[in-house]
Amino acid sequence: MLPGVGVFGTGSTARVLVPLLKAEGFEVHALWGRSEEEACCLAQELGIPFHTSRSDDVLLHQDVDLVCIYIPPSMTRQIAVKALGIGKNVVCEKAATAVDSFKMVTAARYYPQLLSIMGNTLRFLPAFVAMRRLLVEGYVGELQVCDVRVYGASLLDQSYGWTCEELMGGGGLHTVGSALIDLLSFLTGARANRVHGLLRTFVQQKGTIRGIRRVTSDDFCFFQMLMGGNGPPGAGAVCCTVTLNFNMPGSSVHEVMVVGSAGRLVARGTELYGQRNGGKGEELLLGDSGWAGPEAKEMPLPLLRGLGAMVTGLRQSFQAHQERRSWAPGPVAMAPTFEDGLYVQTVVEAVKRSSCSGEWENVEVMSQEPDPNHNLCEALQRNKS
Amino acid sequence: MLPGVGVFGTGSTARVLVPLLKAEGFEVHALWGRSEEEACCLAQELGIPFHTSRSDDVLLHQDVDLVCIYIPPSMTRQIAVKALGIGKNVVCEKAATAVDSFKMVTAARYYPQLLSIMGNTLRFLPAFVAMRRLLVEGYVGELQVCDVRVYGASLLDQSYGWTCEELMGGGGLHTVGSALIDLLSFLTGARANRVHGLLRTFVQQKGTIRGIRRVTSDDFCFFQMLMGGNGPPGAGAVCCTVTLNFNMPGSSVHEVMVVGSAGRLVARGTELYGQRNGGKGEELLLGDSGWAGPEAKEMPLPLLRGLGAMVTGLRQSFQAHQERRSWAPGPVAMAPTFEDGLYVQTVVEAVKRSSCSGEWENVEVMSQEPDPNHNLCEALQRNKS
Repeated sequence: MLPGVGVFGTGSTARVLVPLLKAEGFEVHALWGRSEEEACCLAQELGIPFHTSRSDDVLLHQDVDLVCIYIPPSMTRQIAVKALGIGKNVVCEKAATAVDSFKMVTAARYYPQLLSIMGNTLRFLPAFVAMRRLLVEGYVGELQVCDVRVYGASLLDQSYGWTCEELMGGGGLHTVGSALIDLLSFLTGARANRVHGLLRTFVQQKGTIRGIRRVTSDDFCFFQMLMGGNGPPGAGAVCCTVTLNFNMPGSSVHEVMVVGSAGRLVARGTELYGQRNGGKGEELLLGDSGWAGPEAKEMPLPLLRGLGAMVTGLRQSFQAHQERRSWAPGPVAMAPTFEDGLYVQTVVEAVKRSSCSGEWENVEVMSQEPDPNHNLCEALQRNKS
Repeated sequence: MLPGVGVFGTGSTARVLVPLLKAEGFEVHALWGRSEEEACCLAQELGIPFHTSRSDDVLLHQDVDLVCIYIPPSMTRQIAVKALGIGKNVVCEKAATAVDSFKMVTAARYYPQLLSIMGNTLRFLPAFVAMRRLLVEGYVGELQVCDVRVYGASLLDQSYGWTCEELMGGGGLHTVGSALIDLLSFLTGARANRVHGLLRTFVQQKGTIRGIRRVTSDDFCFFQMLMGGNGPPGAGAVCCTVTLNFNMPGSSVHEVMVVGSAGRLVARGTELYGQRNGGKGEELLLGDSGWAGPEAKEMPLPLLRGLGAMVTGLRQSFQAHQERRSWAPGPVAMAPTFEDGLYVQTVVEAVKRSSCSGEWENVEVMSQEPDPNHNLCEALQRNKS
């Protein structure tokens, strides 16, 4: 039996998610928006019976068993942790910082019977599911290089907000790069040890964002990850390079290429192509099957379809059980966990550090929460001496 | 009146160059090969009256006024400097080291009346000539990012030789990257201040290259250059990223993209495309005009056509004068000088250093020859103390 759903967020993802949920048979009972007005407006448009701007009203809503959180990164941790604490299943987008991500991991570990997955995913896209299977089957031989390029129009909102602020989780690296970092670890079965990156904000003022306000979030980002491999730095590791450019209106390049000793695979948009060394040329391995779901101009097609496939996975997971809060792990086993979310956030922060330092930075995933009194203690120590 | 030509080299470039020269009306009088046999074989094939394996026989040949040097990088400096000293005009490929390049610069400065240009050029390709003109005219607005990708089959010779040895000028960075580094400085009108790179040799043994022999030259190379711009590191600079992958048989991607505040230009192979922000989409700005010249399977089409256009430039330059050794600078003004060659070599070495150190490396072009006794002096100093 499918659980009732409460949705947080009124942005482009929430707007797409609700129809996807309904199409799979979920009932969306409640919608939260930052302002009463935004919530009311979207609830009417999407036919959601209840709307609010108070988060508890959704979290405590008796018909809501699954909470989907698609809100600005800086607010995600608070809602996600509270939802788990109240006993709700959670699908959510990335948080703003590694510390926030770590707190979410702690909560998820504390309530293992509740579903907790990261919902900004490319893993479910059929092209990447097939790519991973072929990698495991040895289509490309020994994996050497992954090369990812995503080009598109500006990610900035029309008016000033979190999308403009690097510290609030704005920018290409955090918004789009996160999903790619997760994808590459899914595809390679490894995690980044070291990263090197370069971020730029080419467009610092735009439209109504002017005067004393400046955009600090990146619109160009370029990073390398050395995944897996031990011994001397980088030896035996897979080299991943990711180029993100959001100063290219009218373009929608979304290309993920993996190159190995025996061939290569390329996902262009939602289609998968492959070429074996010595083969006749590139072959279409998985075409686009057409899209019956809602349109979303602002959302790249791979993300949109990935979201759709994830919602299908959710339906299958919950359908397997009679009790509406219970779920079977199988259909969502592929989904990124909160632990994966913490890893992704750690890589994002290492890339940002690298862009400042100019050096390769190690990726060290937090294993315990930093002491919030750390700075205080240091200050006291200093005063003593 | 066109000068008589002597060609050094029996490799794939020399094999293409001779027909190109002949097609433009040059007479090729002499061919040099490393072995008598190689020289004889190719001379017969191409109908060159004289061949030898002794370099002086070509350099001192009375009908030879222009020397084209397309030989392994480690031998280039010696022949080029000697040719200038004997009073011959020189077109040559890159040398193996910055010190060699500097010696060539010194010789070129010493004989300013002689033509001395780097002959491994993409600058003459019509698509890049047009791209540069459009950049100057402001088609893309303020230039932000250059993104270059060249993918292809292995650059290694069938048998062990300089192509396998990093120190002898083998590898993708040195062989293909050089031409791209030169091209990007031609397009942007700036030089790299700082570079960061990563080189890999994925295929270390191959075919007859086995046993104790190992390939040390890179087959994957990935580097970034910050071009121009002053003030804090990287601020205001153009970010260039170059990805070279020569583990992709059957592929021939040669793509140079420049992105600016108002639009972008992309050269794919020999064709040029453009898109202005807010425009209707990508437009073909310069199509491929067809190729009547010789075929060369081993040579990417952009390089082949660039070579052809350079030979045309040479013909125009010499035709402008009656005396067969005189030339007009105009038609070859676009060509890279030996100074450009030194700059390129300096960038190549900085990228290699960066790949070892993991850090951004400054590009500092040599302004005086390093003291050959430097190491000796240091050793003496050390013994003293």
